[in-house]
Amino acid sequence: MTYAVIMAGGAGTRFWPKSRVSRPKQFVSLFGEQTMIQKTIYRLKGFADPENTVVVTNESYIPIVQKQVPELKHQFIIGEKVARNTAPCVAAAAALLYEKDPDAVMAVLPADHEIGNPEEFLSVLRSAAELASARDSLVTIGIQPNRPETGYGYIRRKEEELSGTGGRKGYPVMNFTEKPDQETAESFLASGDYYWNSGMFIWKVSVIVEAFKTHLPEIYAGMEKLMNSEKSQQDMDGFYLGCPSISIDYGIMEKAEKVDVIPAEFGWNDVGSWTAVHELSEKDENLNAVGSARAVFLDSRSNLVHSESGKLIALVGMENIAVIETDDAVLVLPLEQAQSVKELYEEIKKDPDKKGFL
Amino acid sequence: MTYAVIMAGGAGTRFWPKSRVSRPKQFVSLFGEQTMIQKTIYRLKGFADPENTVVVTNESYIPIVQKQVPELKHQFIIGEKVARNTAPCVAAAAALLYEKDPDAVMAVLPADHEIGNPEEFLSVLRSAAELASARDSLVTIGIQPNRPETGYGYIRRKEEELSGTGGRKGYPVMNFTEKPDQETAESFLASGDYYWNSGMFIWKVSVIVEAFKTHLPEIYAGMEKLMNSEKSQQDMDGFYLGCPSISIDYGIMEKAEKVDVIPAEFGWNDVGSWTAVHELSEKDENLNAVGSARAVFLDSRSNLVHSESGKLIALVGMENIAVIETDDAVLVLPLEQAQSVKELYEEIKKDPDKKGFL
Repeated sequence: MTYAVIMAGGAGTRFWPKSRVSRPKQFVSLFGEQTMIQKTIYRLKGFADPENTVVVTNESYIPIVQKQVPELKHQFIIGEKVARNTAPCVAAAAALLYEKDPDAVMAVLPADHEIGNPEEFLSVLRSAAELASARDSLVTIGIQPNRPETGYGYIRRKEEELSGTGGRKGYPVMNFTEKPDQETAESFLASGDYYWNSGMFIWKVSVIVEAFKTHLPEIYAGMEKLMNSEKSQQDMDGFYLGCPSISIDYGIMEKAEKVDVIPAEFGWNDVGSWTAVHELSEKDENLNAVGSARAVFLDSRSNLVHSESGKLIALVGMENIAVIETDDAVLVLPLEQAQSVKELYEEIKKDPDKKGFL
Repeated sequence: MTYAVIMAGGAGTRFWPKSRVSRPKQFVSLFGEQTMIQKTIYRLKGFADPENTVVVTNESYIPIVQKQVPELKHQFIIGEKVARNTAPCVAAAAALLYEKDPDAVMAVLPADHEIGNPEEFLSVLRSAAELASARDSLVTIGIQPNRPETGYGYIRRKEEELSGTGGRKGYPVMNFTEKPDQETAESFLASGDYYWNSGMFIWKVSVIVEAFKTHLPEIYAGMEKLMNSEKSQQDMDGFYLGCPSISIDYGIMEKAEKVDVIPAEFGWNDVGSWTAVHELSEKDENLNAVGSARAVFLDSRSNLVHSESGKLIALVGMENIAVIETDDAVLVLPLEQAQSVKELYEEIKKDPDKKGFL
């Protein structure tokens, strides 16, 4: 049996005004019709169906999750009372699945990434599940880097090649690294031994439970209590309130003995900004991308236009900008400054009159 | 007695999406609360009150005029069935006023210009009225040029100084010129004998009626018929349909014997584009101008933001652009390309699906 565990707790601000406190990135559609979480869950069909998918999200987003993915089982939507990073999130899901089937494989996946080649992605997941079962190891998906990216953590593999991966290459992990500086990133790229940490993990439920017992006993204590409870929202709240805030990477992956990596290339993109949305969107002959809007361009190239209102968005003489219109806001910024949306968000936060726009 | 005649027939496209076929520039507010025509009429108080103001506009705009300036007399709103340039417009107004008082002075003014110094403006109008009465001449207001503008026609004065202008300088006009090229405009500016043609004219009703008789007998025939009619909308339609399309400048001013000019400086601006709106608007310390909108700027300078919706308009890293939002459209363009709005308008016109946005 395989399960998917979707981490959908983010409250990102990089897609303001489209993503909001009340509706973060994973619940909006940035290209195409489906929202990020819908894409994430439905592309897993055949590996883990929605009925076998656990979603971990903030308590307040439960109704959105239920609405967007109605096939999810009620008890498989875990509402976090407080954000405690990824380790408690994995622990809660593992506790839930343990009593169903300790030998089942669970794949932990972020809710808001884009996959260009879903078939290859599923094939990689299957290999990872095979490896995790065969070796009782914690398996990570390492994205083959194609540029010296300083925005991601890296996974370094050992030389030794593993078997039991369905013909696909797999390696034991030597270590994880934090986001490198430019020079280091270049040396990583050149060495061929480093992969981007995609934040995707595959393991047997019993194996990760054991890992919590060994490396995060405080959380494990909560898991035991949770397993023996009725798993009501109150039980879940109690579990979260008792957890320290710690990432699965730092709390377990970097410490565990048996961690493996499967290198992969399936058009992965973490969709970190409007620039990424422009890159991933369909574009016209002038490289303008239009998301669900009526638009007219004059002497304009390489722009991104999103609108929810049906208004006619007209650009004249503009290049490389994003124009994002929602029910209550319009954002205009150069695509190359897309990272500044965070700063803008903080600016809006400062003004009490503009609270409604967060 | 003095009357004002406001020419409000324009259907300009340079302020799309704010100005529309159904609501051209003169009926929208581009800075401040009042619309252009409201400003134009109400700033004349003391010279010609709204009760003594004639508005000439397209038939279809009559309801807008009535709503925006309720003090106007019903019979003083002239609805044009067809646009026939400015001469028929002046003729219709003169015919209307002739039976009230042939010796009255009428000032013909465009509906959509901005005046920075209204007191000085009124003082100039009074001098012009005095001169027009004293000399039975056709008086124009010549704007003192401060740059070699190639977008305006020019008025060249004779040397001789006139009296009867209430202490203000006034001159006979030597001739009118079309829009000059750059070199010619520079020589005009250097000579000191040239003024911008503001399109503002002051004369006695009897004098302009006589001028039509002499220079535009075809229109004069219609005027006579109109004067002897009940001046119903049908009579007015008949008049317009019988008129050739000709400007008052070409049809009369360039041909008449006795044409005078009063040089003036009262912060005149014909508000020809969004660039002019930015120039004329109040600006914050970063030269950003905001028209009736909630806006937030980050690393952004010298922008113009207009919104009718109450949405939050956010600009990040933008310089010298206009963002104009209306109920059904958003325009983004560099202020220096503001003239391209016309081209954009033509582009939208081509697409049958976008007809509703004209």
